[in-house]
Amino acid sequence: MMHEDERSITQYIRDYAAVVEQRLSAVFDGLDIPPRLMEAMKYSLHAGGKRIRPVLAVAAAEAVGGRAEQAMGVACAVEMIHTYSLIHDDLPAMDNDDFRRGKPTNHKVFGEAMAILAGDALLTHAFFAVASSVPRVVLEPERVVRIIGEMALYAGPAGMVGGQAADMEGEQGRTTLDELKYIHTHKTGDLIVFSVRAGAIAAGASEAQLAALEQYARKLGHAFQIQDDVLDVTGDEGKLGKKAGVDEARKKVTYPYFLGVERSRELIRQLTEEARAAIGGGQIPHPRRLLELADYLLDRDH
Amino acid sequence: MMHEDERSITQYIRDYAAVVEQRLSAVFDGLDIPPRLMEAMKYSLHAGGKRIRPVLAVAAAEAVGGRAEQAMGVACAVEMIHTYSLIHDDLPAMDNDDFRRGKPTNHKVFGEAMAILAGDALLTHAFFAVASSVPRVVLEPERVVRIIGEMALYAGPAGMVGGQAADMEGEQGRTTLDELKYIHTHKTGDLIVFSVRAGAIAAGASEAQLAALEQYARKLGHAFQIQDDVLDVTGDEGKLGKKAGVDEARKKVTYPYFLGVERSRELIRQLTEEARAAIGGGQIPHPRRLLELADYLLDRDH
Repeated sequence: MMHEDERSITQYIRDYAAVVEQRLSAVFDGLDIPPRLMEAMKYSLHAGGKRIRPVLAVAAAEAVGGRAEQAMGVACAVEMIHTYSLIHDDLPAMDNDDFRRGKPTNHKVFGEAMAILAGDALLTHAFFAVASSVPRVVLEPERVVRIIGEMALYAGPAGMVGGQAADMEGEQGRTTLDELKYIHTHKTGDLIVFSVRAGAIAAGASEAQLAALEQYARKLGHAFQIQDDVLDVTGDEGKLGKKAGVDEARKKVTYPYFLGVERSRELIRQLTEEARAAIGGGQIPHPRRLLELADYLLDRDH
Repeated sequence: MMHEDERSITQYIRDYAAVVEQRLSAVFDGLDIPPRLMEAMKYSLHAGGKRIRPVLAVAAAEAVGGRAEQAMGVACAVEMIHTYSLIHDDLPAMDNDDFRRGKPTNHKVFGEAMAILAGDALLTHAFFAVASSVPRVVLEPERVVRIIGEMALYAGPAGMVGGQAADMEGEQGRTTLDELKYIHTHKTGDLIVFSVRAGAIAAGASEAQLAALEQYARKLGHAFQIQDDVLDVTGDEGKLGKKAGVDEARKKVTYPYFLGVERSRELIRQLTEEARAAIGGGQIPHPRRLLELADYLLDRDH
């Protein structure tokens, strides 16, 4: 950067979210896709998500001295993976949710079969978004292969899908706090860790930098998930886009269930501090936006 | 090859199917995966598939002068993708099948939620199988990136998933023969084309060789699918592992429905000849096994 960036963090998020939005709109260009499938994918992909994961990927690239453009393939991919996971999680066989961000869920609009396929298609195409970013920004193929390998691990059976599977089993009512940590680590945390790592790998981060960034992302993801649980108990339904208290009604185990709301809030503050500390030691040359993002995510009310 | 390989094509298939079987058994080694999810994935992955797609990938690599080992990542990946597509296709919201290859389908054993997740996990991990084949056989990262990009296209919304989506829409009863061709091209054909192309790319095939091999695979895949339709009408239930005539009972459009069984068989013979001709012109140095595979697949009765 030539001079100090004076934008606020909310403006920074808005700006990059808009860039990602534009890229996501073009991600199927030139492909011959059945119209109804395309419609189903776009319905959820453009349903008003805050694009937190893509912005984390971009901020991580910039934090190690890279350019946002290097992380754009990753940014689109993590949002497609996040979206597919929401579509499948909402299915009747899973969480059976009718609304998401205040809109009817994918299967309520397109039917279960098309919702399953839209999820499958978004997951698959996420890998195309990364693989096709090679010629555009002259990203070394070695980096692309590493990113794709990590994406498959963090999103796969030992990652996000594993967390969701454990969550499904856990809802039977025998979950301990340790099991809850396992679920959160993988179901929500892994994709956040991947977003940060992959953005940094795209920008050529060193192994020491990746370790610091992973620590940051792990703590942040954990805080983010506890925040989700707390908001479910205390939140404003209009802002949440779903009924508050729904977790409790379903006897779903949460942090407030184990620790209470106040102790959960304390834990969020502590994790956020640890996240900040992980990248504040000097090895990350431009940590500012990641530090601001940690504070921003802690303060959210939806 | 140092001397002429005297194995029959059935022995050749058996040998490489066994190698692939072994590789697939090790594909989750070292990963921390919830036991029930692992069980669900392995149940379908080792449910007695004939490993046709992996063998095609290996044969394509050898056909252009490469080694089987170069195509092993691709071989595992295509079988994982094929398996995931079967699990999701069998779901109640899709084809609602209770049996597959004579065994209860995944969701009948593990429940719908776990079946959806097992499919998601297999699809995701398929990309790991290719991305992680880099260090093992010193496959150039450029080739890996190209293979992964093509895998996402052939298996994604403009490929296999697109074909399945069109099939879902088509079952409403307004399908034409052209639409049926579209469905088959993508739903079944694309993964067969990808298997052959990717095996050859891994082995360093030229663009002219890839074009010839694609032509071969396209015709073969088409014949293979018509064969499936014909077997559904005429087949032996014990060998099929499902009830014969099930397509008709569901008013599913098929080639025999449009053309009758005899004309369909004629078309299979014609397409098989065209497949053979595509790689018989001299540009593929070792076409023998691919030619034998075309004959073998035409003669199958299940």
